Amino acid sequence: MKILIINGPNLNLLGIREPNIYGNQTFETYLKNLKIKFKNIQISYFQSNIEGELINEIHEKGFSYDGIILNAGAYTHTSIAIADAIKSITTPVIEVHISNTFTREKYRKKSYLSPVCKGIISGFGLKSYEMAITYFELQ
Amino acid sequence: MKILIINGPNLNLLGIREPNIYGNQTFETYLKNLKIKFKNIQISYFQSNIEGELINEIHEKGFSYDGIILNAGAYTHTSIAIADAIKSITTPVIEVHISNTFTREKYRKKSYLSPVCKGIISGFGLKSYEMAITYFELQ
Amino acid sequence: MKILIINGPNLNLLGIREPNIYGNQTFETYLKNLKIKFKNIQISYFQSNIEGELINEIHEKGFSYDGIILNAGAYTHTSIAIADAIKSITTPVIEVHISNTFTREKYRKKSYLSPVCKGIISGFGLKSYEMAITYFELQ
Amino acid sequence: MKILIINGPNLNLLGIREPNIYGNQTFETYLKNLKIKFKNIQISYFQSNIEGELINEIHEKGFSYDGIILNAGAYTHTSIAIADAIKSITTPVIEVHISNTFTREKYRKKSYLSPVCKGIISGFGLKSYEMAITYFELQ
Amino acid sequence: MKILIINGPNLNLLGIREPNIYGNQTFETYLKNLKIKFKNIQISYFQSNIEGELINEIHEKGFSYDGIILNAGAYTHTSIAIADAIKSITTPVIEVHISNTFTREKYRKKSYLSPVCKGIISGFGLKSYEMAITYFELQ
Amino acid sequence: MKILIINGPNLNLLGIREPNIYGNQTFETYLKNLKIKFKNIQISYFQSNIEGELINEIHEKGFSYDGIILNAGAYTHTSIAIADAIKSITTPVIEVHISNTFTREKYRKKSYLSPVCKGIISGFGLKSYEMAITYFELQ
Amino acid sequence: MKILIINGPNLNLLGIREPNIYGNQTFETYLKNLKIKFKNIQISYFQSNIEGELINEIHEKGFSYDGIILNAGAYTHTSIAIADAIKSITTPVIEVHISNTFTREKYRKKSYLSPVCKGIISGFGLKSYEMAITYFELQ
Amino acid sequence: MKILIINGPNLNLLGIREPNIYGNQTFETYLKNLKIKFKNIQISYFQSNIEGELINEIHEKGFSYDGIILNAGAYTHTSIAIADAIKSITTPVIEVHISNTFTREKYRKKSYLSPVCKGIISGFGLKSYEMAITYFELQ
Amino acid sequence: MKILIINGPNLNLLGIREPNIYGNQTFETYLKNLKIKFKNIQISYFQSNIEGELINEIHEKGFSYDGIILNAGAYTHTSIAIADAIKSITTPVIEVHISNTFTREKYRKKSYLSPVCKGIISGFGLKSYEMAITYFELQ
Amino acid sequence: MKILIINGPNLNLLGIREPNIYGNQTFETYLKNLKIKFKNIQISYFQSNIEGELINEIHEKGFSYDGIILNAGAYTHTSIAIADAIKSITTPVIEVHISNTFTREKYRKKSYLSPVCKGIISGFGLKSYEMAITYFELQ
Amino acid sequence: MKILIINGPNLNLLGIREPNIYGNQTFETYLKNLKIKFKNIQISYFQSNIEGELINEIHEKGFSYDGIILNAGAYTHTSIAIADAIKSITTPVIEVHISNTFTREKYRKKSYLSPVCKGIISGFGLKSYEMAITYFELQ
Amino acid sequence: MKILIINGPNLNLLGIREPNIYGNQTFETYLKNLKIKFKNIQISYFQSNIEGELINEIHEKGFSYDGIILNAGAYTHTSIAIADAIKSITTPVIEVHISNTFTREKYRKKSYLSPVCKGIISGFGLKSYEMAITYFELQ
Repeated sequence: MKILIINGPNLNLLGIREPNIYGNQTFETYLKNLKIKFKNIQISYFQSNIEGELINEIHEKGFSYDGIILNAGAYTHTSIAIADAIKSITTPVIEVHISNTFTREKYRKKSYLSPVCKGIISGFGLKSYEMAITYFELQ
Repeated sequence: MKILIINGPNLNLLGIREPNIYGNQTFETYLKNLKIKFKNIQISYFQSNIEGELINEIHEKGFSYDGIILNAGAYTHTSIAIADAIKSITTPVIEVHISNTFTREKYRKKSYLSPVCKGIISGFGLKSYEMAITYFELQ
Repeated sequence: MKILIINGPNLNLLGIREPNIYGNQTFETYLKNLKIKFKNIQISYFQSNIEGELINEIHEKGFSYDGIILNAGAYTHTSIAIADAIKSITTPVIEVHISNTFTREKYRKKSYLSPVCKGIISGFGLKSYEMAITYFELQ
Repeated sequence: MKILIINGPNLNLLGIREPNIYGNQTFETYLKNLKIKFKNIQISYFQSNIEGELINEIHEKGFSYDGIILNAGAYTHTSIAIADAIKSITTPVIEVHISNTFTREKYRKKSYLSPVCKGIISGFGLKSYEMAITYFELQ
Repeated sequence: MKILIINGPNLNLLGIREPNIYGNQTFETYLKNLKIKFKNIQISYFQSNIEGELINEIHEKGFSYDGIILNAGAYTHTSIAIADAIKSITTPVIEVHISNTFTREKYRKKSYLSPVCKGIISGFGLKSYEMAITYFELQ
Repeated sequence: MKILIINGPNLNLLGIREPNIYGNQTFETYLKNLKIKFKNIQISYFQSNIEGELINEIHEKGFSYDGIILNAGAYTHTSIAIADAIKSITTPVIEVHISNTFTREKYRKKSYLSPVCKGIISGFGLKSYEMAITYFELQ
Repeated sequence: MKILIINGPNLNLLGIREPNIYGNQTFETYLKNLKIKFKNIQISYFQSNIEGELINEIHEKGFSYDGIILNAGAYTHTSIAIADAIKSITTPVIEVHISNTFTREKYRKKSYLSPVCKGIISGFGLKSYEMAITYFELQ
Repeated sequence: MKILIINGPNLNLLGIREPNIYGNQTFETYLKNLKIKFKNIQISYFQSNIEGELINEIHEKGFSYDGIILNAGAYTHTSIAIADAIKSITTPVIEVHISNTFTREKYRKKSYLSPVCKGIISGFGLKSYEMAITYFELQ
Repeated sequence: MKILIINGPNLNLLGIREPNIYGNQTFETYLKNLKIKFKNIQISYFQSNIEGELINEIHEKGFSYDGIILNAGAYTHTSIAIADAIKSITTPVIEVHISNTFTREKYRKKSYLSPVCKGIISGFGLKSYEMAITYFELQ
Repeated sequence: MKILIINGPNLNLLGIREPNIYGNQTFETYLKNLKIKFKNIQISYFQSNIEGELINEIHEKGFSYDGIILNAGAYTHTSIAIADAIKSITTPVIEVHISNTFTREKYRKKSYLSPVCKGIISGFGLKSYEMAITYFELQ
Repeated sequence: MKILIINGPNLNLLGIREPNIYGNQTFETYLKNLKIKFKNIQISYFQSNIEGELINEIHEKGFSYDGIILNAGAYTHTSIAIADAIKSITTPVIEVHISNTFTREKYRKKSYLSPVCKGIISGFGLKSYEMAITYFELQ
Repeated sequence: MKILIINGPNLNLLGIREPNIYGNQTFETYLKNLKIKFKNIQISYFQSNIEGELINEIHEKGFSYDGIILNAGAYTHTSIAIADAIKSITTPVIEVHISNTFTREKYRKKSYLSPVCKGIISGFGLKSYEMAITYFELQ
């Protein structure tokens, strides 16, 4: 089973950026633990701050992987292009958020991605990614 | 560990109502399997079509249980009173939905409950409940 | 042929409440005449001020009756839960209103129920119910 | 008793136009049956695709007829001028629609005519006209 | 003189729920003192989390009492049905709020009840109820 | 000096239609007096309930007359086509209204015509027409 | 006959301010000619840039004068207080504007004053005042 | 104890202006009775139609008085500047209205002042002021 | 191959009306050249300022022609009735505009016709018609 | 004559992505045929999923080419930056869309690019590009 | 070089009012230092809480001074009249704010003044004024 | 002291693009003079048309520089991702604009960046950058 985790803009700063909202663990550390926990699953990881590179990655893996876990960060709220990319592929995509986006700025309540994703997991800190993997495992 | 699952209006018809959206398994059947799977967790269940009875239940269990998993159905989109009930208690609440509410009518995109819940899990069919339990287990 | 008439909140005060809008005949008196006029039809009646009880009634009769005539009163404008209940059942539902709701407050122009009902009859006083029965008779 | 039925734009194509919404019976055939059924009522009929001609007809009959049954088609949603015509006359007008307009495009939810009509009958197919006649008969 | 105090959803948790907003005195304790202070007035009390039960109570007392003091809690902002109940009765109703609702979430700024109540008293803590009684006393 | 007065839909009923708003004098009577008062001005008159005929008239006279006084009735609020016609011609147009449209329905506050007319005179009864003629006389 | 002309903010700069919109004649010069033309009418004049002073003037003259001609300038679009003042008095008020306000910024399309004035005259340059006087003369 | 009552625009006309809404007692008469009733409280009074003078008064008394009772009239709905003044001072301010503003024009439903005042009392006629004093007395 | 070109309101003034937007060639001249260029195609032409006549023409030709090229002018933005007519027929319709409507007034950005037409060609001057014919030719 | 075709995000998947909307021909195949058909025109092609790279390309060719045909895909609806790039250059740009965007999601109805492009061609499948070239040829 | 600094409502309380937002230095102290720093510039100062007095001052100095630095406080967000005054004069005006208004209440994001000022400087504390003077010095 | 100037999309065309809005000096020329004027400050410069590259640069310099001066061009109005980047770093950021964005298209009035920047300087041409440097110098 092959799963791709994609992180969008500013998530490279995880552990540094606004730790009161996002915690102070880097994603790399978290990823290492995740791979240990889910030994039977091949977990790939991609991060970019560039919208179009996220699209490229979705195109490239989106016809062969079993699942994509996407935290598109701020592009969640502004990118119709990423939503179109998700619709273009055959791999199911789960939208995840570390923070509960509904408790924050009003413009974070709107997601262009939610209607084209399989499902949404939001607000469980880094555990949100783990829960998404669990879903694919249950299939 | 004590977990309460609360289902709101029309979810008593699960398995009968609009099976293309909600599937054709009754919640009772599903619950039985859930209890088998999570033997170490005491799972209680409550369903009502009456908004105020949901509030009463939240009040009653909301200071002693370890977690509440709430699918408030249509009240998700209209009930400030349930949101207030969630804010009034100390037990953390997870909002779950069987369908991906963001793919449906526009008025289902708005949730009064999301901003006062710990997190949201939406769109994974009945698995949404299971994933919520997993979260409490991870604590 | 079995028809259920359901009246929602405040309609128990019919004949007392705002007679300039709703007239001064009680629904009970009207119902008696209705049953006399439509001898071949079995007309049941249910009234409640509690949203969830209306849903319960819709669930209970909604798979065996030939028609439901629903005047949900103020819940017409606020209840997604009742709309969901109507979608959940197989009996066709007609939305009726005593007053022409479009001549009143702006918030009475919006009905969550209209898109899920067979049709709408509004503004003909208590005759609205009678016209709804006529429709079922024509089938 | 004299009743006028007025049909607005595109209703001349009834039976041809979008039969999945409007059925495949022409209005002329329907009208013939209607006249047979209501022998004691003199039923006139007028159809035009021109907004102003509908207004002219309303003016002409609106002080001597006992009732007007108006399906203004798309003008329902755009014509303040027809609404003004209805307010200008003394004959009561019933707004009818063949389809349940509330299940269709958003702009069909708004009716300039509803607030100035006696009542609204919507969604019962061609039976909507018949139910309107019934109302006048009940007077 | 007979006055009815009605408290809506979640107000049964007064003294427990969000004490920074609502204080930590239970309503029962407060009520006891109120009755002592206003010996000449017969003060009744009713609380429910169920919208329809609040309506039932308004109907029952709304033709014989001298005044109703209503804190409908979250239903203030969502219940057209309670507003209709207030319009249906003859007893004057005063809308009260413990907190200044205008300093809180945007959706608490809208009240369906204000336009049908005699007046509004908002933001004075539990004293809001006392001030309402004073008004009836001044009559 | 040649002036054209154009009246739009329903203004043929002046003196009959809603006299509490529009008075009970017919326009023909008024016009006769107007011609007597302004002997030096050649006053033409046109009325139609058909939007396109109003456009035709504007086209026909709009390059040779000295002024057009237009009461487009309800088309004021809905007709971009008439506004385009006014922009297409060289004769200046004055928008007049008998009633003060700003005291009536909300949709009467919007005029497509105002931005393309020389000026607006509204609310002075039939005197509005006379004041418009006065303006042309002052040129 | 006593008429008061009131000019609001920035109209003291008439003849200096934006002459392409307002022309280059001062109001004082215009007023002089106006008094000569209407010898039988006693025309008073008041200008202030202070909203409250305009209200004071309306109060002072608003029970004894035969008419007030009010160009409230920018306060037209923002002042509920002046609208209240107009409603408080018995003298009829005509709203005038030099420019056609509907051709300018969107926020100039809204007038708090229009619904409480007798009528509106807009877009005729300084002639707007003269036409207003003519109206009072016609009474 | 020192209390300041501030009345905003048009309230100088109380007893004259729209008596069906505001009653026909002048505020001076009312004030005299108020001072008699509350002998232990030093009640000052200030009225102005000028927004900035209300601000000046709030500044001047707002650091030494025990309470301010403010009926800002129409400025309630338009003045951010008065709201800022209230936030700038240390004396608590109560917003009062004679009429129930929520039963009137839509634009009277919005108050810039409510979020910065201690509480709101609206709709009790001149008794609103008295109830506000009672609140300060209860402190 | 039979193609119908329909022009809506004010397009009869082409060459006269606002030449800076629409150019100064009459449509008749343009049509002559068009017929010469596309000799194998039978091009018919219809123009009316009356909305309902446009609908009549669409009905009449809309079941036998190979294509309709429609420039509905201002009715593009206001006519649901014409949109319904297009949906009612079987001939494909192309919406054309001479000017780029998106550079003009905000209300010209909305087209009721676009969603029911095959495609849209806008902004190429009179060439827009020619490009539409080219499309039918390519079929 | 030098023409540049620019395709935006996800258009590299043409022929694979949602074939019911976009068809199943790749753009490369289409382009080959296009070059054969228009032998006298030098047609360049650029595709990128990265908004800024589209801007770079527009800058680079936008002062020397005779025309740009731009299908910006989802960026059509979100990119003010691309609109600014189009305004910055001297080469005319035509906006094309394969599908009729007006029949799809509401957010596809808004284009930041339309007001700064020469014209729009939308809904003709891949023929939209060809029709755009035809326009440049006609110049 | 003559520069006028104008401060609007509540800025007379600077140093006292909400020091967490505005700091605790009075403007008079700040002004003294400013004059010392910019010895070659003649700096005048005006403050008023009355909107119309700010307009009067703008009129008086707005044709002879080299620059006006305007902090209109809350009137920034509500006063079209001040915006009109700025448009009426020839001296360039710079809009300054002590706090970053975009981080505060939503209604502070809208400025009627920005579109008519030379430029905006916001958020730099009292240094905002100094930076504005620097701009005039650079001319 | 180390200052970074970042320019966003299309600002590489400065001096070429729309000179009536942005002037005809290239940024490189301007930068040279700026470095001469501020000899004691180390001024770095970065420009990109790619949103994500701007984010990368903000991340890279945002923990070590003393200040960032950011003209994000069109991304100002659409990029939540850049706003998030600014919130993620510790270096203060000043938002600058060459033109007064409030005098232009409506969508340029909204800035996602303003609420997370130290302050805003807008409308002073290239001098806006210089004024921002001055602010850092004053610290």
